[in-house]
Amino acid sequence: MTFTPRNAAMIAQEYTHRVWIENVRPQIDCGQFPVKRAVGEKVRVSADIFTDGHDALQAVMLYRPSSSESWREVPMTFQGNDRYAASFTVTSLEPYDYSVEAWLDPFATWKEGLRKKFDAGQDVQSELQEGMKLLKDGAERASHGDRQWLQEKGEFLGGGASQGERVATALSEELQAIMGRYPDRSRTMFHEPVLRVKADRERARFSAWYELFPRSAAREPSRHGTFKDVEALLPMISGMGFDVLYLPPIHPIGRVKRKGPNNTLTAGPDDPGSPWAIGAAEGGHKAVHPELGTLEDFEHFVEAAKHHGLDVALDLAYQCAPDHPYVSEHPEWFLHRPDGTIKYAENPPKKYQDVYPINFDNDNWVELWEELKSVVDFWIERGVRIFRVDNPHTKPLRFWQWLITEIHEKHPDIIFLSEAFTRPKVMNALAKAGFNQSYTYFTWRNTKQELTQYLTELTRTDQQEFFRPNFFTNTPDILPEYLQFGGRAAFMVRTVLAATLSSNYGIYSSFELCEGRAVPGTEEYLDSEKYQIRQWDWDRPGNIRDYITRVNRIRRENPALHTNERLRFYLVDNEHLLFYGKTTEDLSSIILVVVNLDPYQRHDGWVYVPLEELNIGGQEVYQVHDLLGDGRYFWQGSRNFVRLDPQSSPAQIFRIRRRLRTERDFDYFM
Amino acid sequence: MTFTPRNAAMIAQEYTHRVWIENVRPQIDCGQFPVKRAVGEKVRVSADIFTDGHDALQAVMLYRPSSSESWREVPMTFQGNDRYAASFTVTSLEPYDYSVEAWLDPFATWKEGLRKKFDAGQDVQSELQEGMKLLKDGAERASHGDRQWLQEKGEFLGGGASQGERVATALSEELQAIMGRYPDRSRTMFHEPVLRVKADRERARFSAWYELFPRSAAREPSRHGTFKDVEALLPMISGMGFDVLYLPPIHPIGRVKRKGPNNTLTAGPDDPGSPWAIGAAEGGHKAVHPELGTLEDFEHFVEAAKHHGLDVALDLAYQCAPDHPYVSEHPEWFLHRPDGTIKYAENPPKKYQDVYPINFDNDNWVELWEELKSVVDFWIERGVRIFRVDNPHTKPLRFWQWLITEIHEKHPDIIFLSEAFTRPKVMNALAKAGFNQSYTYFTWRNTKQELTQYLTELTRTDQQEFFRPNFFTNTPDILPEYLQFGGRAAFMVRTVLAATLSSNYGIYSSFELCEGRAVPGTEEYLDSEKYQIRQWDWDRPGNIRDYITRVNRIRRENPALHTNERLRFYLVDNEHLLFYGKTTEDLSSIILVVVNLDPYQRHDGWVYVPLEELNIGGQEVYQVHDLLGDGRYFWQGSRNFVRLDPQSSPAQIFRIRRRLRTERDFDYFM
Repeated sequence: MTFTPRNAAMIAQEYTHRVWIENVRPQIDCGQFPVKRAVGEKVRVSADIFTDGHDALQAVMLYRPSSSESWREVPMTFQGNDRYAASFTVTSLEPYDYSVEAWLDPFATWKEGLRKKFDAGQDVQSELQEGMKLLKDGAERASHGDRQWLQEKGEFLGGGASQGERVATALSEELQAIMGRYPDRSRTMFHEPVLRVKADRERARFSAWYELFPRSAAREPSRHGTFKDVEALLPMISGMGFDVLYLPPIHPIGRVKRKGPNNTLTAGPDDPGSPWAIGAAEGGHKAVHPELGTLEDFEHFVEAAKHHGLDVALDLAYQCAPDHPYVSEHPEWFLHRPDGTIKYAENPPKKYQDVYPINFDNDNWVELWEELKSVVDFWIERGVRIFRVDNPHTKPLRFWQWLITEIHEKHPDIIFLSEAFTRPKVMNALAKAGFNQSYTYFTWRNTKQELTQYLTELTRTDQQEFFRPNFFTNTPDILPEYLQFGGRAAFMVRTVLAATLSSNYGIYSSFELCEGRAVPGTEEYLDSEKYQIRQWDWDRPGNIRDYITRVNRIRRENPALHTNERLRFYLVDNEHLLFYGKTTEDLSSIILVVVNLDPYQRHDGWVYVPLEELNIGGQEVYQVHDLLGDGRYFWQGSRNFVRLDPQSSPAQIFRIRRRLRTERDFDYFM
Repeated sequence: MTFTPRNAAMIAQEYTHRVWIENVRPQIDCGQFPVKRAVGEKVRVSADIFTDGHDALQAVMLYRPSSSESWREVPMTFQGNDRYAASFTVTSLEPYDYSVEAWLDPFATWKEGLRKKFDAGQDVQSELQEGMKLLKDGAERASHGDRQWLQEKGEFLGGGASQGERVATALSEELQAIMGRYPDRSRTMFHEPVLRVKADRERARFSAWYELFPRSAAREPSRHGTFKDVEALLPMISGMGFDVLYLPPIHPIGRVKRKGPNNTLTAGPDDPGSPWAIGAAEGGHKAVHPELGTLEDFEHFVEAAKHHGLDVALDLAYQCAPDHPYVSEHPEWFLHRPDGTIKYAENPPKKYQDVYPINFDNDNWVELWEELKSVVDFWIERGVRIFRVDNPHTKPLRFWQWLITEIHEKHPDIIFLSEAFTRPKVMNALAKAGFNQSYTYFTWRNTKQELTQYLTELTRTDQQEFFRPNFFTNTPDILPEYLQFGGRAAFMVRTVLAATLSSNYGIYSSFELCEGRAVPGTEEYLDSEKYQIRQWDWDRPGNIRDYITRVNRIRRENPALHTNERLRFYLVDNEHLLFYGKTTEDLSSIILVVVNLDPYQRHDGWVYVPLEELNIGGQEVYQVHDLLGDGRYFWQGSRNFVRLDPQSSPAQIFRIRRRLRTERDFDYFM
């Protein structure tokens, strides 16, 4: 920090900068982690930029795809209170860098003083001479074509015309346009560190997941389902409007300590065991459970799914059954008891005898990590583009950071979903470490206050820059109480909430059949597919397949629902009703949703439409189209009445259309 | 980021850390700037710390005075939601470093599992064997005295006693105490960057300023006051309870373009000019205006002030009158017009012909900066310890950062007050750059909402870590409308607000005389001392010297008012009344203040005392002593009545005492 005349030259640059750049956003943990965008999404960069005194300054946002050496520039616009902003769009599937650069603008400072003095009737002869100098300096920086023009204008400012004429020239837009091209940026301030945005493909931002146990896909009772059976279900699944089909582990299932139905300790000879007890004589994480078919069958299935617009997502569960080949090949990758035996998984006092956890802390960790990565590479080779990662919070965070970075370097289109139901800081850290989507607490948020608070946290804080929620209504591990006891209406309510609050959502199959039977006093499904094969009547009475189909179509057709960026909650005067909206930035797509959270009782209420936000005049009549029930209304003013009966339609999804004014307006209202 | 088996060893440390440390507080702009504390103040350091899975961890806060090589450690305690915290006190006048370190605690993890399994009736033979190993590893890290003890306990765990006895030993506090001394910190996570706190002397945090023009200090009409005259006023000033006496510039005043009374352009031969037009034939920033006395007189005055408990604060105004010696010696330090003349200060269309601003951007900036620093050093040599810096926002921020750092390196007790009335981001940046105290917008904040919002921003956000407000009620430049039109009550109200809302506050003399005459339509004093000599009748009828004296005594005697750390606003059901409180951390000092913001009308209201915060029971009777009016009351419960008449007592400052329960309680209430 100390300088002397001797070292001054060296540090002049550092000391004599007069521009300060602060609080550059978005920025996660001082730039330690990138923010996330899907291709096609904007990054709005903002910063506090100022200097001492009254000098004018210019600021640009700089950005570049990581593959490019050179920065692109966008002028930042003043937002008030020393804040500047500009945006760029992520257009290719690679990381982007961004930063901010600013410099003093003596020409603008000079013009402002000139104008004020001239307007106050002061003599500005000296100022005009200064202007001549500024223009001549500008001319030296200018391209050949503009150079002479600037020199001439400079002469004019210093010349014999009236002060009024010369001031008019000085303040002209024409001069500004030319001078603006040649700023003196020799003492520009560049913000460090350079920040980064990681680009994902669009499905990372907007997706509808369907989870299915392939072994339950057979049409004949008690036959083990196969990939071929799942292929037969593809029209139904894609017909409902889903675009990701997620399968629990498809690998050989261990025979040692296999679990029986409803998680009992002793399996019968025909019990299939838990698919998460991975590995047996037939192979481990790179093999297919023989009863599901062959690796070729799987590849065929993945292709067939693609034809139906479905991405197949595999489960990535880094743990082993006792008979997984890793156990004998690499005993050092596991935890050992003092007697030399290998430890099964525990969450004391609970025991999971059919699963050996991996010991990431072992001395041979490098070989282990490389092997685990090769599992991902193996399935990428076979067409898989999405991985749902099982319990990532029980493996080191830095392992995930490394793995995902490595994979994305070669395959930036791969999507990793974090299945971590754990403490908020850890869930966030996994997202920062690289997961493209994350499970959430949505399943346990039911009331208006809970939902409003949680969604505000997810969508209105820095968290939205790196944490992409995926709202699952249920999972093989979680049949929430609300669904156990709320009946069909509860399933409809949760469908609408998941699908419209979050641009990524999912259901675990049987949800559409309103399956609500649990092991009493728990959130576990009764006769859970985790431990046994089930057959489902997909046309079971009371199912809501049509309802889900309609919701998914509404999602696809309305761009407002493709992102969570502009989710806002609005006032409705009934605690059981939730009222919220999403829009595109240009308001070309406006969706308002009202949901009756009480699955038992009908509720009425007055909703308050945010006319100003939606750019609708107070006297304007606007069209409200309930896309679920197909009702159409004309509303006027903010306050409007809704009535929601859970037995018929517990929710309404309104598309708002501002009425076009036509010549027939008069007739229309006659 | 990529590793291969070949470079793995090198990066194992980086990759295999399992502990994450995030969001370490306090932290300003990613550690770019230090936080501030006065000696004796605490730094409460907190951080989010977690690992994958369920492993236990330990965390310590590390700190050291910058003069020390070695860290001191304080265990951090768990606050919930993965947050840990610990505190240290700044005890010496030097910068301190702080950081956080954390590591996994396998012994604690093991004990937790052992306890759960044993409580569930499971066999723990294998776990006890593991414990034996953990204790033997601990023994290897232990000092000689504990080594054998740990080895023996290890043998016992693995030995033949009953599992119950061995578990009891394993879970004993005695074993925890010994094992806790020898953690395995070979894979500890240390948070970087190391953060810094800058230590100031106590007066940076708690001070009462009095501003006075020495030339107005003479007792005889129209004589130019001298330092000797100011000496005669010292008993009055210190008697009122002030501890900083701030003088506008004391240097020779320029004769060229000198301003006349009320800022007129033509000065008469006897007009003294503005003290901020610094420099004349007699000298510049290192000289004393001859009419005030000699340099020796000044030094004598500084000593005399010290005897009265007063720090003399000088004005540091880096600008020059046209006849300042710098102008002829270093014309390159100033701005030039095209015709070669030097530019005076302007804020177009306003002109300040008697002042030349310094051009910090000149090529000879190194010599300039060193010279400006030598001005500060010169006055430090003469006993000055506080500088009030004039318009710092019109000089480069990095100049201040350099100057203050340089000065503090040798003289850490120097206090710099930033007189910047400018945009919020710039005011904050000056504080970050090093200013120990800052002027604020207080003079223009009058309503309940304005004051609550502004003080919340100052004391409840990160700003309080680096920005120390100094609430001036008035300045030679600012006679606020509230004082112009509010009469004596307005002066009392603003005294109480400034002195109790902010631990640093100040008045500009004549405030205590309720001087409220302005140049009409402006905030300028009529016949301002900036341009002419005034004489004041310090005993003028209607003065509030006694009131101010009382307020300053209350401040000194009540430690709650020595800091802004725990300022809280409380409910009172009248918009004209403001109700707030301050406490020490241990609640040994509790002050509640209620102020009638309306200087014209009496107002009543019900205040709601925050009983829970103050640790007072709902049924408890507590003593409320109005230190201003000397009334004493017993209150019970939260809701209590107040009535404030601006003509008699527009404010009450309550000291709260929880009643001691004595044997006479019964009698007392009879």
